[in-house]
Amino acid sequence: MGAGLKNRGKTREDVDERRKAIEESTGVELRNIGAVPLDPEAASKNIENMIGAVSVPVGFVGPLRITGDHASGEFLVPLATTEGALLASVNRGCSVITASGGANALVVKDSMTRAPVFRVRDLRHAVEASSWIENNIDRLREAAEATTRHGKLLRADPFAVGRSFFVRFSFATGDAMGMNMATIASEAAARLIEKETGAVLISVSGNLCVDKKPAAINSILGRGKIVLADVTVPRAVLEEKMHATPEAVAETCYRKCGIGSSLAVSLGSNAHAANMLAALYIATGQDPAQVVEGSMSTTTCEVVDGDLYISVRLPCVEVGTVGGGTRLPCQAEALSMIGCLGEGKASKLAEIVGAVVLAGELSTLSAQSAGHLGQAHSRLGR
Amino acid sequence: MGAGLKNRGKTREDVDERRKAIEESTGVELRNIGAVPLDPEAASKNIENMIGAVSVPVGFVGPLRITGDHASGEFLVPLATTEGALLASVNRGCSVITASGGANALVVKDSMTRAPVFRVRDLRHAVEASSWIENNIDRLREAAEATTRHGKLLRADPFAVGRSFFVRFSFATGDAMGMNMATIASEAAARLIEKETGAVLISVSGNLCVDKKPAAINSILGRGKIVLADVTVPRAVLEEKMHATPEAVAETCYRKCGIGSSLAVSLGSNAHAANMLAALYIATGQDPAQVVEGSMSTTTCEVVDGDLYISVRLPCVEVGTVGGGTRLPCQAEALSMIGCLGEGKASKLAEIVGAVVLAGELSTLSAQSAGHLGQAHSRLGR
Amino acid sequence: MGAGLKNRGKTREDVDERRKAIEESTGVELRNIGAVPLDPEAASKNIENMIGAVSVPVGFVGPLRITGDHASGEFLVPLATTEGALLASVNRGCSVITASGGANALVVKDSMTRAPVFRVRDLRHAVEASSWIENNIDRLREAAEATTRHGKLLRADPFAVGRSFFVRFSFATGDAMGMNMATIASEAAARLIEKETGAVLISVSGNLCVDKKPAAINSILGRGKIVLADVTVPRAVLEEKMHATPEAVAETCYRKCGIGSSLAVSLGSNAHAANMLAALYIATGQDPAQVVEGSMSTTTCEVVDGDLYISVRLPCVEVGTVGGGTRLPCQAEALSMIGCLGEGKASKLAEIVGAVVLAGELSTLSAQSAGHLGQAHSRLGR
Amino acid sequence: MGAGLKNRGKTREDVDERRKAIEESTGVELRNIGAVPLDPEAASKNIENMIGAVSVPVGFVGPLRITGDHASGEFLVPLATTEGALLASVNRGCSVITASGGANALVVKDSMTRAPVFRVRDLRHAVEASSWIENNIDRLREAAEATTRHGKLLRADPFAVGRSFFVRFSFATGDAMGMNMATIASEAAARLIEKETGAVLISVSGNLCVDKKPAAINSILGRGKIVLADVTVPRAVLEEKMHATPEAVAETCYRKCGIGSSLAVSLGSNAHAANMLAALYIATGQDPAQVVEGSMSTTTCEVVDGDLYISVRLPCVEVGTVGGGTRLPCQAEALSMIGCLGEGKASKLAEIVGAVVLAGELSTLSAQSAGHLGQAHSRLGR
Repeated sequence: MGAGLKNRGKTREDVDERRKAIEESTGVELRNIGAVPLDPEAASKNIENMIGAVSVPVGFVGPLRITGDHASGEFLVPLATTEGALLASVNRGCSVITASGGANALVVKDSMTRAPVFRVRDLRHAVEASSWIENNIDRLREAAEATTRHGKLLRADPFAVGRSFFVRFSFATGDAMGMNMATIASEAAARLIEKETGAVLISVSGNLCVDKKPAAINSILGRGKIVLADVTVPRAVLEEKMHATPEAVAETCYRKCGIGSSLAVSLGSNAHAANMLAALYIATGQDPAQVVEGSMSTTTCEVVDGDLYISVRLPCVEVGTVGGGTRLPCQAEALSMIGCLGEGKASKLAEIVGAVVLAGELSTLSAQSAGHLGQAHSRLGR
Repeated sequence: MGAGLKNRGKTREDVDERRKAIEESTGVELRNIGAVPLDPEAASKNIENMIGAVSVPVGFVGPLRITGDHASGEFLVPLATTEGALLASVNRGCSVITASGGANALVVKDSMTRAPVFRVRDLRHAVEASSWIENNIDRLREAAEATTRHGKLLRADPFAVGRSFFVRFSFATGDAMGMNMATIASEAAARLIEKETGAVLISVSGNLCVDKKPAAINSILGRGKIVLADVTVPRAVLEEKMHATPEAVAETCYRKCGIGSSLAVSLGSNAHAANMLAALYIATGQDPAQVVEGSMSTTTCEVVDGDLYISVRLPCVEVGTVGGGTRLPCQAEALSMIGCLGEGKASKLAEIVGAVVLAGELSTLSAQSAGHLGQAHSRLGR
Repeated sequence: MGAGLKNRGKTREDVDERRKAIEESTGVELRNIGAVPLDPEAASKNIENMIGAVSVPVGFVGPLRITGDHASGEFLVPLATTEGALLASVNRGCSVITASGGANALVVKDSMTRAPVFRVRDLRHAVEASSWIENNIDRLREAAEATTRHGKLLRADPFAVGRSFFVRFSFATGDAMGMNMATIASEAAARLIEKETGAVLISVSGNLCVDKKPAAINSILGRGKIVLADVTVPRAVLEEKMHATPEAVAETCYRKCGIGSSLAVSLGSNAHAANMLAALYIATGQDPAQVVEGSMSTTTCEVVDGDLYISVRLPCVEVGTVGGGTRLPCQAEALSMIGCLGEGKASKLAEIVGAVVLAGELSTLSAQSAGHLGQAHSRLGR
Repeated sequence: MGAGLKNRGKTREDVDERRKAIEESTGVELRNIGAVPLDPEAASKNIENMIGAVSVPVGFVGPLRITGDHASGEFLVPLATTEGALLASVNRGCSVITASGGANALVVKDSMTRAPVFRVRDLRHAVEASSWIENNIDRLREAAEATTRHGKLLRADPFAVGRSFFVRFSFATGDAMGMNMATIASEAAARLIEKETGAVLISVSGNLCVDKKPAAINSILGRGKIVLADVTVPRAVLEEKMHATPEAVAETCYRKCGIGSSLAVSLGSNAHAANMLAALYIATGQDPAQVVEGSMSTTTCEVVDGDLYISVRLPCVEVGTVGGGTRLPCQAEALSMIGCLGEGKASKLAEIVGAVVLAGELSTLSAQSAGHLGQAHSRLGR
């Protein structure tokens, strides 16, 4: 294979040389991948072995009116996807929400977690280590916070199972998504535990964190930001714009998200939260693998005084407005579109995420309900 | 707001006008998003309200040697991400696998599911409907398959819970990922059930399918393709390239993926399968929201005759090599790089997915193991 | 310690001697445990190291009208418990059901499972073993059924994860609960697999069965009998007997069993199915540890035409009317009370189980609803 | 039907009359149920509609050496079951543990939970209610603790999902299992919340408690007592008494409880914890329906310096030594046998529960391992 394959350089020449080596090696011309503009040096902290970039189509939905603690006003929100019909659907939801006076959205908890796993001799050793942690939380905080300017250690919760001992650290991480910060700070704290208790650090992540895996501990306790959003859609608005009744939407939500998700043993229960998360995360430079935890959302619908009340609970919105993919040019522009680039914006972004998921849920549940109304609703004479 | 916001057109002029309207409305210049090349008409089936495209950096990993039923040989695999260090890590895993003779990879089940939910009068009604389905599977097949050239109805499994009645349809969908195909075919079959049994179709998706939500039914029974991959890494290779021992890697996997994931009540147990899936899916035009189901993977490590055996089981690899995002220029090139564009390639792509996840798991588990070896391993005198 | 402690005999003298040795050793007089009548030789297949018996109070609920495929008529059902208020509550439910014309109850699936786990060399080996099983199901059936008069092998489903290979066998087991039968037959089949494929049998139970552990595989696919039961309670009956409205009961069920159970990440969603199961299982000589699987039940309530529709789905009713504890004198009488002793009665018993759980669920949900109605319902002006 | 059926009286005459009415009504003689001695007035708080008692055989296991914080010494433990071979098996485990120096056992958390569910107007209302709770924890404590002599309110954790609002109260409940105490105290606190915030109490139990249902929230956070127990079994002891090697037992535990339980999506992972719990709970007057939560236990095995280390983690040991079934004569004797009757004994009982489960797990895993050793172990030449 060509020499370029071994080239780890990060200049444009390196990238071009590498891409050419691949073209030779595979016999496939990478003209488009080579033509997408992205300065390799600007992306040097985001990828290795770069050969170019892929172009993912981006559109917008909105205006979406939001009344949040951090996001307030009407937003035009960028979404990147290759799934036809998604933006049209979410956009319909935005239109209904805005016509209903806007979505409430709020962040009710905010902490990033990391849970190292240690090997201990036995349960007595685990209990000793737990006691040490309880009695030395200040030293742990000091060790952890020495590694970061913005991170604050909030909690350290021990779990003991045989010779495996876990400590779930929770951090405030400011406007960064915070995984790296939490990992580095956790490692420092873990090394202190190791030194003082004799517990042997096996992995800085013991899967009780839990990053990028669907897990009940996160759906219950949250990771990143727990975001709630809701709106009451007047009957007339729903009927006019969605051709569905509040009763039909609520029934669809009940049978599908309520009974169906329970029978499937799902974590969370929603229509398609992951779609909105993926599209918004890719557009704005978030980590798309964290759609996994985000997908454990819960959507509820109720008929209240003849209108449709709809809500979402997103237990794991892990987003940042500094660092990571937010530094790339297109992604920074997408964040700017919604006023979320830079310091002091992470909670605002999280609320927008909540409202956009709400819009997508409302739209899909309404569409499915409308489907059955026209053709079959009267048959059973409910 | 500007007129362009209402513009639903799909020509380049429409896109430019719309982007300009947003620039005006938000006061944010979208120069980069506007400059990423992507013919709006080529993307017309992939997005609505298009305003441009985002550029996501793409690199490669490999050569990765695979011995699959469909994928055989050495591959240079494109991955798109903004998470620094990911490609370097996966690439290390590829290097170790290739030095170990390559990964086995295979597809052991292949079916796409869709599960409409109906309202029935009561349980007797549900049981009648179940009987009808059992006795009329040929009629259902006929109705379903009339809507598709490639889809084949494989099964129809009924589930009854009170007045909610679900039928989980399973389809063979050829080289398409197959969700749309399965949805359309399921709706046709559902309409026949409705007509013949009086059960009222509430939603063509009853969340027992389950698409883009983490759910045990899928981790157990699979959705899309169940992919298995494994490799035995000789001790010398592991020690030289990863600076880790088989025992340390196996212990990390055991405490983290075994005990930790169980305590967290995770679906699946792995180190970071979602990372590889997201990067490969974005590069090749797959649906990134389906990383959710893919993330329910299980990674196992064992020391066998002094070497490291490592395996992954991915219960839900939902990929296609025709349709959807695979039509876009960059994404088609990425598929071509691994010989997976077009008809007859979906199983090959799935095997490559399995092998790349294996590489990423091997690398991360090894790195975490190496971390603890150097500093702390001897302390407890295991 | 006394010699009696080592005495493994099963005569009354042995039991008395053993109890006396314990009295001596512990200094505690076991007068009551010694006085409960139970012929040790009659119990010789049910316990070892016997020292007497405990007396568990038993009462009845009913008449409970049931319209099942196997259980039809009015039943007086024995329940054994030490939890005050349980029988009074369940009895109220029975009264309402009977006044509403009776419960529908039916068995929709019936199979007992056992899943041995094997060690294989690698995934290729697992796939070979799977193929062998698929191609030799007749030989497996022959091997399995040679060990039993009543058991029939229905399915053999393989699962491969790394070097662990599972085969989930499903059996029809007649009127026995069938665990022992399934275990012995599975071991015979597993030995054949071992001999023919080289897969090494590690344990005849690989926890994919799954006995006496809560697991999604069972809540989805069922184990033992899947039992469904429902009833529509006229508004007037509910209001008169329960002082609750259909709307209030449905709302309680929705917020508690629907939202609450989902948020708790429960398997199943019900009010207290385990209470009825435990009380009925102890009275009738079933295995009380199998309440674990039974507890994964789903209860639903809906307001239909102004009345209350309520249903239960019990995915795992693992009961028998021959063998095990059903042979003991009190337990046999309890089974006789409901016409369920001996051959041909297991499905009847399962339907009664379903109807009694329905009664308990109806009663508790109604009571909780009544609680809130009186004091607080008007406040929010729903 | 006979008049006795309506008789709610609690004297012996009432019970006899009622039983006779049932005998007449069903045509079944209940001689044995009528002959089991149990003073109806002594059981008057434990059951209604009493017709007699069932006799459940009880045996013992032990001596079992335990080194706990509360239980210390050798114990002869009563178990009630009708499942042949169970006691023999558990007894073997006790013998091995005692020969290994005894089991460590300890309680690491102790709190009983109850989680009322309220209806709120919307998410803003839920957040207001959450704030009120945070700011008025002292008033909640006062209201809750006014209802109980022993109960102490430890925490009040709010959860908001749409218009459903949950508060999970945690209590210290002394030596009672504490469900009733927690329920009554929670209702008082809930009424205060209702009065002050306008949230409408829908049910005092919102299934986020979670009682008698398998749920991740409990397996993660615990309910009742979290009990840990472990022992290191010297190789020689294991080989002599169990005819199994540490390696074989650890492998069985790994493939079965590790991989198998994960693939089955189980809560917890163990061999048969529910068996020991049910037998001990029935013998000692605990609530057998709480075996459900207890069954979510995790068993781990490791080979350490050539010996077998085995541990259990039981997240939900909900036991009491006062009140409930512990007042009945046989059950009180059974508690006395292990020195656990009355005040100050609940933690001791919990540690014994942990050690007995450990014994049963050790025995079953060893037996399964021994099975495969003799016949098949060498074949694969591991």
